[in-house]
Amino acid sequence: MLNNLYSDLKKTLSNENVLTTLEERYAYSLDASNLKDLRSLPDVVVFAENIEQVQKIVQLANKYNIPIICRGAGTNVVGSCIAEHGGIVLNFSKMNKIIEINKENMTAIVEPGVILGQFQKDVEKLGLFYPPDPSNLAVSTIGGSIAQNSGGAKSFKYGTTKDYVLGLKVVTADGKILKTGSNTIKNATGYNLNTLFVGSEGTLGIVVEATLKLIPKPESKKVLMAYFDTVEEAVSAVNAVIEHKISPSAMDFMDKNAIQTVEKFYPANLLTNKEAALVIEIDGFECSMNYQENIIVSILKSCNASAIKASHNNEEYEKIWTARRSSMGACAKLKPNVTTDDIIVPRQNLAKLVFGIREICEKYNLEVCMIGHIGDGSIHPQIPIDYTNKDEYNRYKLAKSEIYDLTAKLNGILSGEHGIGIEKRDYISKVVNCDALNYMRQIKKTFDPNNILNPYKIF
Amino acid sequence: MLNNLYSDLKKTLSNENVLTTLEERYAYSLDASNLKDLRSLPDVVVFAENIEQVQKIVQLANKYNIPIICRGAGTNVVGSCIAEHGGIVLNFSKMNKIIEINKENMTAIVEPGVILGQFQKDVEKLGLFYPPDPSNLAVSTIGGSIAQNSGGAKSFKYGTTKDYVLGLKVVTADGKILKTGSNTIKNATGYNLNTLFVGSEGTLGIVVEATLKLIPKPESKKVLMAYFDTVEEAVSAVNAVIEHKISPSAMDFMDKNAIQTVEKFYPANLLTNKEAALVIEIDGFECSMNYQENIIVSILKSCNASAIKASHNNEEYEKIWTARRSSMGACAKLKPNVTTDDIIVPRQNLAKLVFGIREICEKYNLEVCMIGHIGDGSIHPQIPIDYTNKDEYNRYKLAKSEIYDLTAKLNGILSGEHGIGIEKRDYISKVVNCDALNYMRQIKKTFDPNNILNPYKIF
Repeated sequence: MLNNLYSDLKKTLSNENVLTTLEERYAYSLDASNLKDLRSLPDVVVFAENIEQVQKIVQLANKYNIPIICRGAGTNVVGSCIAEHGGIVLNFSKMNKIIEINKENMTAIVEPGVILGQFQKDVEKLGLFYPPDPSNLAVSTIGGSIAQNSGGAKSFKYGTTKDYVLGLKVVTADGKILKTGSNTIKNATGYNLNTLFVGSEGTLGIVVEATLKLIPKPESKKVLMAYFDTVEEAVSAVNAVIEHKISPSAMDFMDKNAIQTVEKFYPANLLTNKEAALVIEIDGFECSMNYQENIIVSILKSCNASAIKASHNNEEYEKIWTARRSSMGACAKLKPNVTTDDIIVPRQNLAKLVFGIREICEKYNLEVCMIGHIGDGSIHPQIPIDYTNKDEYNRYKLAKSEIYDLTAKLNGILSGEHGIGIEKRDYISKVVNCDALNYMRQIKKTFDPNNILNPYKIF
Repeated sequence: MLNNLYSDLKKTLSNENVLTTLEERYAYSLDASNLKDLRSLPDVVVFAENIEQVQKIVQLANKYNIPIICRGAGTNVVGSCIAEHGGIVLNFSKMNKIIEINKENMTAIVEPGVILGQFQKDVEKLGLFYPPDPSNLAVSTIGGSIAQNSGGAKSFKYGTTKDYVLGLKVVTADGKILKTGSNTIKNATGYNLNTLFVGSEGTLGIVVEATLKLIPKPESKKVLMAYFDTVEEAVSAVNAVIEHKISPSAMDFMDKNAIQTVEKFYPANLLTNKEAALVIEIDGFECSMNYQENIIVSILKSCNASAIKASHNNEEYEKIWTARRSSMGACAKLKPNVTTDDIIVPRQNLAKLVFGIREICEKYNLEVCMIGHIGDGSIHPQIPIDYTNKDEYNRYKLAKSEIYDLTAKLNGILSGEHGIGIEKRDYISKVVNCDALNYMRQIKKTFDPNNILNPYKIF
């Protein structure tokens, strides 16, 4: 059967766009979720170069009744890109054209394989701005960010990917092309199918083109960093900033372990004796920057912050963000592997979440570094482990389940910006009720009756 | 049968919450769409006071197999609240509690009958902000704005209702309670059912509670008004403002007829010899207001604007907005009736849309005043007519259809913020393709297999 599939694929695609050897397929057996028990070999990896090819690939998936799993840069951390049941991995890295950036309409039309960071740079050159900023944006694709409804540090002020998708061209499970949404900024014309696809992790259709909303680029930006002796003081400082009608473009958080681990491996003069650090970015008109900075500094001081620093040029700006962003890399140096997670609660429960996670990790004798988008109530606990240590891996899995129980108890959910994929699907019912899951399953059936589109992901 | 229904309803609701007389039902036979051929008598009008009552009403609708049509303040302008096939009109004006405004989480939980304008005031007292601002917000309800995905002048900067709905409690067609979304700012946990309900015009479920996102209230605001000798110059001025990285909170437009009609009935010293006026609102930090004003004034001047005025206090602010908002009322004085519409195109096609609408109305010997949210590419043509004049009414209907053809040709859609309801459903296929409509119909069947929830609206 596989040889027939390969030969059919090679009739549609050029030879170099059909990868069939074990070595090639092995390279696509995992994504950045990097959990050892997720590894799974696809039957074949293909690169599409245009929409017609995607349609033909879908037709072949139907013919052979095998799954089709879309993949951008493979930066997904929950196993959404893994061919758990074999099938075709459809790589979009060759469908990477920015078709149009329309300055007057403030919209862009892109193929799914466009690199997010590159797109942002191109857009900014024209004085426009595309805010969603997952931390992997230097390599991750727009298609992936649509599949997972990616956010990032700037979601607090600017929202997530779903807020910027105006229209989609989707290849459906039967190989047809479906257009959703519109080229307009607002839309109250029928059901919102756009947002159904955003965050659906490739389970409802294959996004082959997206029309995105752009906004005017803020004139100026600046980042501040401050330290606190308690997590509660850091949370209070965030609340106080908002009470003063400041809407920072980012409010990020590092706990003591994250600070210490970053300082250990990537020294940046961080204060390792502090319980928490905040990284607050402000943006807007140049003339408002000093005003915003002064208010925030005075609020931070009144909340007992120490060592408050603000960036005064691009180098200082990058230095502060680099320290915050190095946490995952630093954690990865503590043990052979590192896991990340993505849980989110109403902000008033954030301190409880941080302490609870620490307690759970202590109970299971695991280290944990916590960073997060504190403005959103979002925490990314990073747990370094050694996968070959079976006992540790089991302890990690027990801790993970308890962390999700805690999240549910604190009125939170299992993902704010990473998605559910394989890794969290067994836990989704902790936070999404049974009726909602049933409606989701029915919607899945409506769009993909033969269950060939990234099957068994999410639920 | 009706007497049995009435008696069943009176067992569930108190007598004064069940309206059965002809006079009472006649009062609910129309909404603000006000088109004479839409009038239709419901079998009964009921007021629910809590969620359990809504569930029981839905059970009765199932028992008697009759439609159930939700209604807030009845400000809908496309016939979404009309009981076209009889049935139960479910009035939410008694479920009007703001359950919680949570300052720390920046969220609010509301019942559907809460008046939007009142909610905004309550939220602003706490230094927070809920941006969606349909022009009827002094009377319209949050439930209605969710049903129609309402926008308003501030959508350009702040988005529409869908961008502020975090979670919903919905009574489904089988009388169960479905919870969608979450209490968190971000959500990548399963399909986005929230946004499926927003804008679904009560056809998929009955929203009985909503969790809304709030943002910090801008410190200051100011509005500018300016006149132009050509529509194209007004459009150019809007583009130039955005190019200068200004993101006004509103950019509204009045054409010559709108200016003249307002001035005729509500004199406000408007310049009646000008082709177009812009109303531009800016907001943000107090310290940035002069800067923004100066840039905008200089851009407006370079685009040949004349008589540029800026508000310097609340009275001047209200005066400018009142002039802009008086257009519909003024138009209503030209003839016994006035129709409004809501079409939207990519902004680069806006001038073509304005001229095209004028040409079509001239062809059919109709007057038209055009206002709109020019930043969004949105136009509300207001056509005064006399419904008792059969010939004129027919000409209006022909013009309307041609306006929609033009909109489709200009890559636009039939509604940016009003919805489709009855009035536009025969035209929706001009802008939404057949496959998308089929998926919408399948989704409708999934949520409402017996077709009792506001049946036959939208498509």
